[in-house]
Amino acid sequence: MKKKMNIALVGLGTIGSYLLKYLIQNKNQLIKKNMAIPNVLKVCARNRNKKRGIKIQKKLWAKDYKEIIKNTNIDLVVELIGGSEGVAKKLVFESLRNGKHVVTANKALIAKYGDQLSEIAEKKGVNLEYEAAVCGGLPIVRSIKEGLIANKIQKIYGIMNGTSNYILSSMQKEKMHFKDSLINAKKLGYAENNPKSDLNGEDVASKLKILTSLCFNSFINKNIHVEGISNIDKEDIINADQLGYNIKLLGISDIFKERICQRVHPALIKKGSYLSNINGVLNAVVIEAKPVGQSVIQGEGAGPEATTSALVSDISSILRGNIKYPFSISKKERKKFKTSDINLRSYSAYIRLEVKDISGVLTNVTKVFSKNKVSIKRIIQSPYNSRKNSRIIIITHNSKDILLSKTINTLARKKFVIKKPKFIRIEYI
Amino acid sequence: MKKKMNIALVGLGTIGSYLLKYLIQNKNQLIKKNMAIPNVLKVCARNRNKKRGIKIQKKLWAKDYKEIIKNTNIDLVVELIGGSEGVAKKLVFESLRNGKHVVTANKALIAKYGDQLSEIAEKKGVNLEYEAAVCGGLPIVRSIKEGLIANKIQKIYGIMNGTSNYILSSMQKEKMHFKDSLINAKKLGYAENNPKSDLNGEDVASKLKILTSLCFNSFINKNIHVEGISNIDKEDIINADQLGYNIKLLGISDIFKERICQRVHPALIKKGSYLSNINGVLNAVVIEAKPVGQSVIQGEGAGPEATTSALVSDISSILRGNIKYPFSISKKERKKFKTSDINLRSYSAYIRLEVKDISGVLTNVTKVFSKNKVSIKRIIQSPYNSRKNSRIIIITHNSKDILLSKTINTLARKKFVIKKPKFIRIEYI
Repeated sequence: MKKKMNIALVGLGTIGSYLLKYLIQNKNQLIKKNMAIPNVLKVCARNRNKKRGIKIQKKLWAKDYKEIIKNTNIDLVVELIGGSEGVAKKLVFESLRNGKHVVTANKALIAKYGDQLSEIAEKKGVNLEYEAAVCGGLPIVRSIKEGLIANKIQKIYGIMNGTSNYILSSMQKEKMHFKDSLINAKKLGYAENNPKSDLNGEDVASKLKILTSLCFNSFINKNIHVEGISNIDKEDIINADQLGYNIKLLGISDIFKERICQRVHPALIKKGSYLSNINGVLNAVVIEAKPVGQSVIQGEGAGPEATTSALVSDISSILRGNIKYPFSISKKERKKFKTSDINLRSYSAYIRLEVKDISGVLTNVTKVFSKNKVSIKRIIQSPYNSRKNSRIIIITHNSKDILLSKTINTLARKKFVIKKPKFIRIEYI
Repeated sequence: MKKKMNIALVGLGTIGSYLLKYLIQNKNQLIKKNMAIPNVLKVCARNRNKKRGIKIQKKLWAKDYKEIIKNTNIDLVVELIGGSEGVAKKLVFESLRNGKHVVTANKALIAKYGDQLSEIAEKKGVNLEYEAAVCGGLPIVRSIKEGLIANKIQKIYGIMNGTSNYILSSMQKEKMHFKDSLINAKKLGYAENNPKSDLNGEDVASKLKILTSLCFNSFINKNIHVEGISNIDKEDIINADQLGYNIKLLGISDIFKERICQRVHPALIKKGSYLSNINGVLNAVVIEAKPVGQSVIQGEGAGPEATTSALVSDISSILRGNIKYPFSISKKERKKFKTSDINLRSYSAYIRLEVKDISGVLTNVTKVFSKNKVSIKRIIQSPYNSRKNSRIIIITHNSKDILLSKTINTLARKKFVIKKPKFIRIEYI
């Protein structure tokens, strides 16, 4: 007889409802592929009466999440509440402590409490799976943990947020302002009503922290440089375009001399490079590793369909009894790496200044650069048609990030500089 | 105490030697990640004295492959001999029959005998894993079987042969002839001494047959249209380039109205499309599926490093006891689909004719097209500088493949057509 696994779904928003429908409609197929029965025993949500496009039998409803934690018949809890605190946190911690497997799409929770949670899972011999928390439908977690298990990973980077990538792509394609592009993204369902964490880089930061610890067998490292895209102007997109670049929000993590450097920021990347062609809501992640070389995984990073694909892959893995350490390797083997600050890295950079159109400005600007030992590769000065000021665009040679910052800060204080200078790093990836 | 798994490696060429070295050097890491010990108990190769850059203890050598089959201490056999018949076939069949797990990089064997082999594996409850047989380092088999397990796949396509892609890319980049590009590829180690199966499409055909059966839960289907790249001239590459296309060797498989259509052929694809940017020895596979949407996996398709990455992922999966059906699903659930012939598909096509430079030729050519109901989208006639003939390049509208073939065959018989007409399909992917 086939093994039966009792599942509880907690959180029935768009994703939870889609998953529930999927599990009911595809039960037979999952049994055939996994040699075990996924049986949805309980569901739980704040509002029972919300329209979900699916009939939920009365007996399926649990009173609250505490009932789920206590119910000894439940083998596997799927947490789809979200947020790193409150009910989601309690549910996942307590479920693991009670020896239940957990599948979650909650990146904030894993990025914050992943180390403690995986310790409990390891102690209890249960799975804690979170494929859906990182880049939706891309099988990236599974590929790092299983498909690329043979490899020593040196670097992971990519486009990990569909909302910001949609906004930047459409700013580029339609020569739109940030605000208009955001309004469009909301209309089309590509941005949430409150898209703050998508735009300020925090969403990518959570994903990157998780990927970093997976790739380098390290504990989750909270030292990360994060910038978002709200400051990117249409003007910068157009300038970059003319100079042969696209602007993308990147998450990058690498290890060098036993130090990890994690950073999230917009960057100019050469047109024609792989990531420059990733447009719209797509996600794409590149892994550099030995012996395999460079591997790329690209796909839909969000939405109920892609997320369900990831959740079901985790549920299936547990159905097949594929017990693994949540972070590839036992707690006692995970390492605590030192971090390397982005300040110590070197970049070429794109800098845009709005300056008063008075004589000697260019000389004064270039002086600031040479004082800070930042050498200029390219400089373009042109008047703003609409106002009396001038625009100066500078592409620098490779310079220490800290010197670039100093240069910008010095410039910002000059009287002839009218607005806060714009500074975007260039990544040759 | 940790479970120990005794492994035998059969075939110690470039890949086998690299894998052996890897398994010895990374044993501890694999134990940590898989909670079981991969112990190389025996190796076997035709020539013991070949230089392999690794010291092999005397006690490791098996007399011959039969000793491996009979040795009841061996749990897992890694077959790296190659070829669909002879020793490789006997070794894999007999090892499975004797209840041993098998890992292989042998695409010809799996494409030919995969159905029988998986039946034996299923009966014996052992694994038959072949990630390394399909696109080297890309975790494509594992992604279909596990990461994308939730999905109903409709189409799979991509660039699946590094050698031919290297040749086509360098023909394009360096404006080289096929022969010169092939010589280069051999020098650089990107083409074997006998690259026949890489160039005639057979290598891609084997991979595609395996992927098709995985994607559609079908038995291996031998009905496949196969063309290689040996007929692609520098001239066609240049013409395509000027018209806004690159030429790539594609493997494509889809299912429509319960019929599978598998085909391997060179195709013009729009510049700027994802696959058009995959150059050199890279492989890239695109999967269209529900609910996840489009997924892409890209990486190194060949070489000892990438192949070892794939082999070790299979070995690790077995170490963790992740028993699965070799083709995702039990034999009794796999389907036998009808096939749809490429003849019934519709394509735009690129056609190049070399014709005598006499009056009325163009009219005669266009007549052949209209008689066969193939309508012309674009036609360019220009003289060959070096000889007295003319070149006619035609891009057709979408037409049934069978009508395109008829058109070509009729043209080939005309006296004013000097050489066999060149015909390459256009794929809008």
